[in-house]
Amino acid sequence: MSHYQQLEQHYRKLSRFAHLGAICGWDQAAMMPAGGAQARQEAMAELAVLMHQLATAPELAERFAAAEQEPLSQGQRASLAAMQRDWQQQTLLPEKLVAAKSLAGSKCEHAWRSQRPANDWSGFLANWREVVALSREEAQIRAAAQGCSPYDAMVDLYEPGMSSAQLDDIFGQVKRWLPSMIDQAVAKQANQALVQPSGHYPASEQKALGTAVMQLLQFDFTHGRLDESTHPFCGGVPTDVRMTTRYSEQEFVQSLMGIVHETGHGRYEQGLPQQWAGLPVGRARSMGIHESQSLFFEMQLGRSPEFIAHLAQLAQQHFSQFDPQLFSVANLQGLYSQVQKGYIRVDADELTYPAHVMLRYEIERDLINGQIEPEQVPELWDHKMQQYLGLSTAGNDRQGCMQDIHWTDGAFGYFPSYSLGAMYAAQFMASIRQQLPVSELVAKGELGPIFAWLADNIWSQASLHSTSELVIRATGQDLNPEYLRQHLQQRYL
Amino acid sequence: MSHYQQLEQHYRKLSRFAHLGAICGWDQAAMMPAGGAQARQEAMAELAVLMHQLATAPELAERFAAAEQEPLSQGQRASLAAMQRDWQQQTLLPEKLVAAKSLAGSKCEHAWRSQRPANDWSGFLANWREVVALSREEAQIRAAAQGCSPYDAMVDLYEPGMSSAQLDDIFGQVKRWLPSMIDQAVAKQANQALVQPSGHYPASEQKALGTAVMQLLQFDFTHGRLDESTHPFCGGVPTDVRMTTRYSEQEFVQSLMGIVHETGHGRYEQGLPQQWAGLPVGRARSMGIHESQSLFFEMQLGRSPEFIAHLAQLAQQHFSQFDPQLFSVANLQGLYSQVQKGYIRVDADELTYPAHVMLRYEIERDLINGQIEPEQVPELWDHKMQQYLGLSTAGNDRQGCMQDIHWTDGAFGYFPSYSLGAMYAAQFMASIRQQLPVSELVAKGELGPIFAWLADNIWSQASLHSTSELVIRATGQDLNPEYLRQHLQQRYL
Repeated sequence: MSHYQQLEQHYRKLSRFAHLGAICGWDQAAMMPAGGAQARQEAMAELAVLMHQLATAPELAERFAAAEQEPLSQGQRASLAAMQRDWQQQTLLPEKLVAAKSLAGSKCEHAWRSQRPANDWSGFLANWREVVALSREEAQIRAAAQGCSPYDAMVDLYEPGMSSAQLDDIFGQVKRWLPSMIDQAVAKQANQALVQPSGHYPASEQKALGTAVMQLLQFDFTHGRLDESTHPFCGGVPTDVRMTTRYSEQEFVQSLMGIVHETGHGRYEQGLPQQWAGLPVGRARSMGIHESQSLFFEMQLGRSPEFIAHLAQLAQQHFSQFDPQLFSVANLQGLYSQVQKGYIRVDADELTYPAHVMLRYEIERDLINGQIEPEQVPELWDHKMQQYLGLSTAGNDRQGCMQDIHWTDGAFGYFPSYSLGAMYAAQFMASIRQQLPVSELVAKGELGPIFAWLADNIWSQASLHSTSELVIRATGQDLNPEYLRQHLQQRYL
Repeated sequence: MSHYQQLEQHYRKLSRFAHLGAICGWDQAAMMPAGGAQARQEAMAELAVLMHQLATAPELAERFAAAEQEPLSQGQRASLAAMQRDWQQQTLLPEKLVAAKSLAGSKCEHAWRSQRPANDWSGFLANWREVVALSREEAQIRAAAQGCSPYDAMVDLYEPGMSSAQLDDIFGQVKRWLPSMIDQAVAKQANQALVQPSGHYPASEQKALGTAVMQLLQFDFTHGRLDESTHPFCGGVPTDVRMTTRYSEQEFVQSLMGIVHETGHGRYEQGLPQQWAGLPVGRARSMGIHESQSLFFEMQLGRSPEFIAHLAQLAQQHFSQFDPQLFSVANLQGLYSQVQKGYIRVDADELTYPAHVMLRYEIERDLINGQIEPEQVPELWDHKMQQYLGLSTAGNDRQGCMQDIHWTDGAFGYFPSYSLGAMYAAQFMASIRQQLPVSELVAKGELGPIFAWLADNIWSQASLHSTSELVIRATGQDLNPEYLRQHLQQRYL
């Protein structure tokens, strides 16, 4: 067996343990009764130790070197590189730092759960300073190995190949048109009269509706399921995707679109190439590309008038006892494109969302690069919220810089992925529209050709190319935020 | 850390991996879509390899010897002994034999799935000879290590401490009174007129009913769930018990009692001592004792007139649209105690069940000890069926010796556990009746004191004592089939 084949065997073994962890992780969120938590945590921690040992096995270094000398196909070269990247990222940090960051992060996150509702910034800051300090230490080590800035090294964990130079450029462009576009959209919608859902929408009926929509979206139920959890996610493994959602029985609109969103994640996973299953190169390309698929499904496809017509029809079938006005295409479209300046990112609409991300990006970039200190964050937050959305968070940190979980345990560098996803999605759709009569196809419910484009250009490509190359191969050019602008302008103005 | 403590650590680690396997095993049966099967099997196989490595780690032998020299509590001594037993059983067989038996067993079982409906004995025999040969080889190796007969060594895997001398004695007694008791019961019931369930009993309503009954049986839903699978089982881990059932929508009687049965298994697991969690000594005592708990719930408690009164009331609440005659206590009691001579063990009633087990015991004992050959089995089966139940299976092997899965992959020695369970259950109930007004308590739905007896005497004792000691401590005497006879006589004559 060649060195490369031995490496494949090693990573496939690792992925089998990851499989068990993914299923048990899903179970923990969707199925497990409360009393099972402690023993489960212990079991998952034991698995994490084993997987870390396998992922950082010292003998891999030599094997990589030996495999590099072997005759490999192009795909195998990409596969080897992906293994090496994975190994380097996992072995770079001293165990002591990993343990300290994990401890400080858990402590800060746990306390944050009560500090946030209490608006207790100073209490939060006391724990968070340590999280920031350890994250900076991590970022510096990674930066030294990669020859980039500390923040860029953190971004690279989620969006390999992305830099703050590129992000500065992208968000610099967005900043020029977004605030005024938001103002115009809000003004345009000012006198809109919409029928809001009212009454009782049983979860079981919402699930039946969601399942019908997933079928329309060609989710493969022989390789996946839909269940419920407090925080919706898409987990499991590519051959067995576990999607979750949550239902409010007061309305069906949110959960339904949530299902469309998660289905995008799910189909990406289901569409990953069997040939590279279990290997790092066979994984989804990046967080931004993953989000591009969920946002393609939700924003490009799901909120288009043609798709909303399908949703309207299906929803009316499942909730036939309600006011038919609610299910008119125009009304549902109105509900699904309301623009509102708000404090909370997770509640934000498509148009204001990038403002929330830009703000976080600018703050976390400077924080990790050591240009600002943790105690300055509330003031900067307030300042940028006023600038981008005209809202002040002074003295209101629970709705300001304390609202997200990401920073509490040191996941700096993640936020840009959300907006990158929206931009990739818009760019992919613009390309597809050049090749296919998208509106007609969607109107007829013939989504196959659109999914075939995604399958060919994105899903089946896994991590065989860099993100930038993937985008260029798919669309003929590198990431260009102009497509998002055009999409938003067309939808909201 | 002492050697003994290091051993505890090792076995607790092993149990954490077993935890992941138990949850993923449950998922496979109750949740997984068909397309997830192959990758899951690979992941489970990888886990099995890891667990086998941990369970057979060569360094354990020395550590056992060192731990034996340490000052240990009585419980720790029992714990150490249970570890040693586990290690010995897992290391005794050459890897080659384990692999060959597993392969031959899979092949035979797989082919059996179509050979059984086709009544293809000669096709089955062609594969089965190899399974028997390899099982004999296994039995001989185990027998040599333990100084007992080959068959006794196999029984010991499921019912440690049990011997064929004792089984011969027990089943010898049963054989003297069972056939005539069956005949009398059948005659007595000849003119019984019962209202059979008819109509449609939706699975969702049956689940609600089953859940209500589990609550009456004090199943702890913060440490467990009820789901569905093709073959009902009780899986998961003691802190998170996963029970399954299956519903036929044509009637509710079978599934309801199936839930009562599995709840007995579930409460035993939930009642295992926290102190010994994750260690071999903390596991359930034996297959027979496990079955004694499910049969205690099903036969001793569940089919008593006082408990059936609760079932009748609950069932009528959930299925109020049906004929109230169906839910009279006398009618339900009649349905739950019908005696019928039949070919199939899994469909057998309480009274005829031991006949099915005796027959299998006598055949597998002689087969493993080399006193009969595989080709003689159909004739022996037919002969014994005629003797015990007055039925001939000549030329009808699909309803005869090909009906069970157990022998197809070499699980010889398991069958006696079913009847041992029934005997232990009757003996436990006889003891409890001496201390508690059982009928009154059950009538009032006050099951707490009965469960407290089981918790104190059985559940919390795990594997701290031998089965025989456990039974003597609980009831004042060793296993005595006379209690089962008295119970059956009282119920059926």
